[in-house]
This record gives sequence, structure tokens and C-alpha cells, in this order.
Amino acid sequence: MAAPLAKEQILDTAEEVLRRFGLEKASVVDVARALGVSHGTLYRHFPSKSALREAVGERWLKRVSIPLAEIVKESGSSMEKLQKWFQTLIHTKRSKAIEDPELFSMYNALAEESVEGITAHINELIQQLTEIIEEGIRKNEFKRSDAGQVAAGIFYGTARFHHPALAKEWTSPNIDEEFRLVWNLLLSGLKF
Amino acid sequence: MAAPLAKEQILDTAEEVLRRFGLEKASVVDVARALGVSHGTLYRHFPSKSALREAVGERWLKRVSIPLAEIVKESGSSMEKLQKWFQTLIHTKRSKAIEDPELFSMYNALAEESVEGITAHINELIQQLTEIIEEGIRKNEFKRSDAGQVAAGIFYGTARFHHPALAKEWTSPNIDEEFRLVWNLLLSGLKF
Repeated sequence: MAAPLAKEQILDTAEEVLRRFGLEKASVVDVARALGVSHGTLYRHFPSKSALREAVGERWLKRVSIPLAEIVKESGSSMEKLQKWFQTLIHTKRSKAIEDPELFSMYNALAEESVEGITAHINELIQQLTEIIEEGIRKNEFKRSDAGQVAAGIFYGTARFHHPALAKEWTSPNIDEEFRLVWNLLLSGLKF
Repeated sequence: MAAPLAKEQILDTAEEVLRRFGLEKASVVDVARALGVSHGTLYRHFPSKSALREAVGERWLKRVSIPLAEIVKESGSSMEKLQKWFQTLIHTKRSKAIEDPELFSMYNALAEESVEGITAHINELIQQLTEIIEEGIRKNEFKRSDAGQVAAGIFYGTARFHHPALAKEWTSPNIDEEFRLVWNLLLSGLKF
């Protein structure tokens, strides 16, 4: 008897299949075939093609948010954490977009299929930022303010540098300088 | 003998033709036919299909920038002018994107065909903002700063609310509140 299928193994294979056949053509049958299992076995794990696609999209978003959650827990200056958090977010997105633009577009298209998934992801990121800012206020590093509102403001104010729909502008030679200009203005709301 | 063709008349007709046939299918011959002139006559004004498309795209960008240039020349408080300038930019883009999303996408696709055209347009907008900020500094309304850098920072920091690639998010019920959060942070770099 074959070992039971692990969810991660299915998602790894689904990713490979989506990548090989493209988002339009890849089917659950293709994924089952690549795993060497029946269509029915796979459907027990993912009851529909859209459930499988959604799971691949969610895993992609987790790959962005999990390393950022680690930064929130680190010790050290809140300003340094805030900077490292954004550098990591932007570096992760930019390197994936530049190294493999097709795969990047595919993941984003998959993630966009679930509006709830994207909303939950953005709320999770803003919550992480809120925790960094709350800590900075407690430690008197940042001005007293509504941490959640400042977190949302900084997140949306830097959209140009991390929103996947703007990825093709990230290769501009001025992009880092533009980020610095935006960042300095946004931070003047936080600093004493 | 027919009256000579005016550039504006050609562009009006080209817009209608592009709209009716779509960006891919519309040809210079279609435009000439709609104007009741020969292909050759039209080519004297626009030596190639791409020159005609570029001119339509440029006119679209001018429709955005000209009303904004008027605001720069108005009298009154610099802060009010800055706010009115952004309200007008965002309102212009949002109303066009929401009223007629297909036409909006077509114009943006046309404008994007010319990287120099887009760059010149953005530089013009940032130059307008720079003038408002320089005036505010002279009048002691704003903190002393590098007006050009602040202008670029505010422009790129509000990209989420005016970059055409993000148009489909402008119908979000939270978009005005998100703008307010970003705007308050960005302005804290300008205000005393």
C-alpha cells in the first residue's frame, strides 16, 4: 500500500504541473498523474480544481508572510525592525518577479482568485507592522499615534514597491531612490 | 477643395475608431475612411500607425495634466492647492476608470507604448507639485526641505490611488480612508 499523500507533496507537484502546463491548461488529472495516484485520491484532499489552485495561491502568500512574522519577534530597535521588515518584503517580491516573471505572474493570478485570501494576507501584514509600531511607541522610539492606522498608511504608501501589479517598474534604475524619498516622508510621521 | 485636416479632428476620429474596433484591429485606413480622406492624406499628418497611436495616448495624458497645471497657478494657501491637486488627479483617473473601464485601459495601453511619453508626463506632474511645495516653503506654510524630493515622495507614495495598473482596486469601499491614512503620514513631512 502506498504511503498516504501529504498536503505539501500535493502542492509541490501542483506547482510543478501549473508551471509546466500553464494556469489555463493544467488540470487536476495532470496533477494526479504526476503524483502517480488516481483522480479520486486527489479529490479526497482537494474537492475541486479551484480548491487546489487556491491552496497553491495561499502557500505562495505564506512564503511571503512567514519570514516577515519572524522579524516581528526579533529583539532590537523597532526602527531597525521596521526597516528590515520592508526590505525583506520588497526584496522577496522583487527577486521573485525579476528571476522568474512568468511564475510570479502565475502565483499572483492564483492568489487573486481568492479575494478573501488576499484580504486576509494584507490584514496579516498590516497586523505585523502594527505590532512593530506598538512596540516602538512603548519603548519611546516612535511618537504616540494610532499604531494600526500608521501601519496601514505605511503599507499602502509603499504600494509602488511591493504591489505585484506594479512589478514591471521594479527594474527601473531609480526605484531604490524613489523608495527612499517615500520612506523618509512616511517615517517623519513616526519619528520624534 | 476640402478644408485642411486639423490635428484635433484627426485625433477625435482616431479615438472613435480605436474605441469602435479595439486597439488591435483599428488601422490607419479605418481612420482615413471615417474622416472621408485618403490614406495618403492622413499619412501626411501622421507618418505611421504608431505615430497616430502615440498622439492619441499623449492627448489622453494632457487631459490629465492640463487641469492640474491650472491649479498650480491659482492663488490661495499652498496646502489647499496641494490637496486640490491630488483630489483632482485622483478624481479624474477614478471617474474615467469607473465610468468606462475599457476605454481607460485602452488609453493607458496607448500611453504605455511610449516610455518617453509616460516619463515626460510623470516628470511634468512632479514639476507641478514641486512648484506648489516651493511656494509653500517661501510662504512659510511648509517646512524647509528639498521641494523636488518631497514632490516625488508624495507622488510615488500615493501611487496606489492614481497608478492606472491599480485601477481595479479604486472601487474598494475603504479606498478613501486608505488615502487619508497615507496622506496624513506623507504630509507630516511637510507640516511644521
